[in-house]
Amino acid sequence: MKHNRILSVALGDERADLVLKNAQYLNVFTCEFLRGDIAVTGGRIAGIGSYRGKEEVDCTGKTVVPGLIDGHIHLESSLISPAQFARAAVAHGTTALVTDPHEIANVCGESGIQYMLRATRSLPLDVYFMVSSCVPCSPFDENGCTLGVETIRSFLTQERVLGLAEMMNYPGVVAGDREALEKIECALAQGGVVDGHAPTLSGKQLNAYVACGISSDHETTTLAEALEKLRLGQWIMIREGTAAKNLRALLPLLEENTFRRCLFCCDDIHPGELMAQGHIDRIVRSAIAQGVKPERAYCCASYHAALRFGLAGIGAIAPGYAADLTLLDDVSKAEVAAVYKRGRLVAQGGALTVPLEEETLANRKAVLGTVRLKDFSVQSLDTHGRPLPVIGLVPHQLVTTKEGTASAAGDGLLKLAVIERHKATGHIGICYLKGYGLRSGAVATTVAHDSHNIIVTGTNDGDMARAVLRLQETGGGMVLADHGEIVCELPLPLAGLMCDLDAETAQQRLTDLKQAAYALGVSDGVDPFMTLSFMSLPVIPHIKLTTLGAVDVDAFRLLP
Amino acid sequence: MKHNRILSVALGDERADLVLKNAQYLNVFTCEFLRGDIAVTGGRIAGIGSYRGKEEVDCTGKTVVPGLIDGHIHLESSLISPAQFARAAVAHGTTALVTDPHEIANVCGESGIQYMLRATRSLPLDVYFMVSSCVPCSPFDENGCTLGVETIRSFLTQERVLGLAEMMNYPGVVAGDREALEKIECALAQGGVVDGHAPTLSGKQLNAYVACGISSDHETTTLAEALEKLRLGQWIMIREGTAAKNLRALLPLLEENTFRRCLFCCDDIHPGELMAQGHIDRIVRSAIAQGVKPERAYCCASYHAALRFGLAGIGAIAPGYAADLTLLDDVSKAEVAAVYKRGRLVAQGGALTVPLEEETLANRKAVLGTVRLKDFSVQSLDTHGRPLPVIGLVPHQLVTTKEGTASAAGDGLLKLAVIERHKATGHIGICYLKGYGLRSGAVATTVAHDSHNIIVTGTNDGDMARAVLRLQETGGGMVLADHGEIVCELPLPLAGLMCDLDAETAQQRLTDLKQAAYALGVSDGVDPFMTLSFMSLPVIPHIKLTTLGAVDVDAFRLLP
Repeated sequence: MKHNRILSVALGDERADLVLKNAQYLNVFTCEFLRGDIAVTGGRIAGIGSYRGKEEVDCTGKTVVPGLIDGHIHLESSLISPAQFARAAVAHGTTALVTDPHEIANVCGESGIQYMLRATRSLPLDVYFMVSSCVPCSPFDENGCTLGVETIRSFLTQERVLGLAEMMNYPGVVAGDREALEKIECALAQGGVVDGHAPTLSGKQLNAYVACGISSDHETTTLAEALEKLRLGQWIMIREGTAAKNLRALLPLLEENTFRRCLFCCDDIHPGELMAQGHIDRIVRSAIAQGVKPERAYCCASYHAALRFGLAGIGAIAPGYAADLTLLDDVSKAEVAAVYKRGRLVAQGGALTVPLEEETLANRKAVLGTVRLKDFSVQSLDTHGRPLPVIGLVPHQLVTTKEGTASAAGDGLLKLAVIERHKATGHIGICYLKGYGLRSGAVATTVAHDSHNIIVTGTNDGDMARAVLRLQETGGGMVLADHGEIVCELPLPLAGLMCDLDAETAQQRLTDLKQAAYALGVSDGVDPFMTLSFMSLPVIPHIKLTTLGAVDVDAFRLLP
Repeated sequence: MKHNRILSVALGDERADLVLKNAQYLNVFTCEFLRGDIAVTGGRIAGIGSYRGKEEVDCTGKTVVPGLIDGHIHLESSLISPAQFARAAVAHGTTALVTDPHEIANVCGESGIQYMLRATRSLPLDVYFMVSSCVPCSPFDENGCTLGVETIRSFLTQERVLGLAEMMNYPGVVAGDREALEKIECALAQGGVVDGHAPTLSGKQLNAYVACGISSDHETTTLAEALEKLRLGQWIMIREGTAAKNLRALLPLLEENTFRRCLFCCDDIHPGELMAQGHIDRIVRSAIAQGVKPERAYCCASYHAALRFGLAGIGAIAPGYAADLTLLDDVSKAEVAAVYKRGRLVAQGGALTVPLEEETLANRKAVLGTVRLKDFSVQSLDTHGRPLPVIGLVPHQLVTTKEGTASAAGDGLLKLAVIERHKATGHIGICYLKGYGLRSGAVATTVAHDSHNIIVTGTNDGDMARAVLRLQETGGGMVLADHGEIVCELPLPLAGLMCDLDAETAQQRLTDLKQAAYALGVSDGVDPFMTLSFMSLPVIPHIKLTTLGAVDVDAFRLLP
């Protein structure tokens, strides 16, 4: 009988495998800190009280909280492989996350998602999946693959798949788009949940969106917006990512009557921020520093995510729950001393204590060699002085502003191009960019949401072309060219999205790239690569650029 | 597309089927009362805001709350058929309940549960089932049927079945009883939940019980007990039934940090209490009168039950949720003005507004004619002056006290007998009863938890035998005999548990029976029949009587 050992340990008849002695621990059910020994056996919590174990860890002065959970992330956006992400995140107290493999699905489709499922199978971190709902994300875009209803249905029956990922096509849903609604119904019919993505949606349109069964949102940037969504029954995922930081605006939500419907997520995070500041612990730390009660912050960082996704058996410190435990030196500062996954010590003092399995080349084959251009040269960027729309950047935000049109770069305006790279169609969209700040050279990347074509901006066509051609050589990545030379780069051979490097090395390369970019004039408040990578995402207001040209997101149409 | 109509209604493009205009309504997510029109279409809520409908109901001055939900009831204990129960409960604002068909399962087994599923299929009330876990409830008892693991498994896959009902064999679970653990694992493996029943269980034993996956309790009678269970992750079902009333003791649980893990239940309720005082509305009313915030009381009375059982789509007033709505004249007094089930008016002014389907005889056949005795006569009750245990009654409680032994009735002591009635084994358990108060005659019933043999108590063997033989004639029921005559009775032909009568008539008969019983001396604070019916339940401390004799519940053994 499976139960027999946990019973005898709970009863105190047998010694536990592990006892965290004299711990202060978070009780998520009452949202309070309590004291007791936590007895663990077979990877699960057997009891809380006074216990003896084969291994005993004195936790006097320390606090145990449930392992932290990221409710919504695109792992690929960290630029490192899932294993390297796990190494960094687990050391920061994370024991589970819910990823939407939207980026790799846009490049490699089904086989990209299968790669991510394989690559996360045996990590010291539970990786759950939401099936990407909008691949491609827009009819005004060209990506590598299309995920239809039947493919989505086939993933929904797989282990670790919890539902349908952020339904970004909110205008489509509200307008009754047949395919969008079919995907939602398919997920709900299979008992899955459906995540939302509906920035600024409100009133009757929001009612309509929610009525379809879309039960969360992570795109909320104001308190009023969050309150409206929460009152309509949506879980609010408070996002603190590298490109978008919403915690400060949503802080009042972490009060008595609303915090129980909130959880935390990163959405997109770069390895530098992950290494230096942390993962979900970083959000907890920031919330507490801004006055949120620690017990509430930790509930949002663990239990509430488990509740939102119906993950029975994780996210709480109670008998029968998985022993996914984060031990803190300082509860207010979210200082992680050690992390236990299913009762096994997996991180201590900021470093992983267990080996990570090496990925085989065979495992990766499906996601290598994904940059395919058609006859690209510097002439491809010539616009012959045509007037084209201008996209205005807003520091620290993903939303952009419409800034009229221009006919040439210069005077703070840069040329911006998005070059199709999946099927070698030769399509190139071109417009202008304001507020980026670059004064010389060009910046290019194959990380360009959501279709991950090549996005490039620069002061001159020559450097822009040089950078693009370098990406073709390396199979994707990030690159900076100036005066005809490659100044700095980070190759991302895995689908043009992730590198082969450990997080520290990737971080150093990225830091070098950013420093070089800032040296060439990129503005403060703009992340040279991440901000750029969102300029081609035509589902966030108000104007974006795709391979087919500039898109008015509000009107959901291509600009002339 | 299913979604199209709800979308256009939500958007205000089409008129709703029904709009509750200008309503104050309960928002369960923020636990606050808000204002807005509630638009309903196709039985679901399309939106909240400003809406027009084909039918509009002005709710100015009224309050709309989600339809009330009883988290744990044994429908059979109401003594009326499921349809008649629905008629009374819906008028009191109930739109869903979770029943454990434990009583009828003990009499008729599988076919009893199937009868209950059939009889609740088309009521204006959602009836969900938990499969009875302990049939029979104890090895020291004789019932009509046994529900094994395989039978339980077969029910768990049926629609409306949510998991395994109260695991009363808590000593068995804690001791590692193979069958009890198999039943629990079977339910959890199929995605069901498991309800608990563990009065006074505490400390390491409670840890063990909870570690097996038992996630609720409704047997909690003190605040300390409730807090301990709640902190270990159990949902607390606050019970106010006809025999057990725990609200007053557990009232402090309805505070900020604990009320969100509480729901309400009746467990067992007689038709008189149901008609006169109400169902879940009665508990809400009482909680508010004792100082609980109305919004919290209504959340416990609706949403929290839906959460506990994972009933997605009911229990809240928000887009996409079922339009199960209870309209209140007075929110503090829980005065129900009207009830909507899937958007349809089903009750108004305390009366059902829709017809109830008549049950066919064919539908009932499996549960008729269930009283089978072997050669019973007055001699069967003769104890020949043997010393036998004395059970002490505690007013308003199901627990009893051990009161030593006695050799004869008299001086406040009554003879108590439990007579096997399913398989005509001829087994009779006899002891004495203190505190019941009867001064003349005998009281007998086939409603005798949990095996529903005949339980009879009286001042003399002659009246006791007369009462028992009358139950044999009527196919079960409740009866009072005095001086050799049947004074009063309520026949219960459906499994010896439920009558063919409407709730009012059943109530009148029961009132007559009780009055007659009190006239014959039954003590205040004792319900002549319901209290008696629990004297044979050997899973509630401290001493009970079965067909095999008196049982020491604490020691889990038969007394000599």
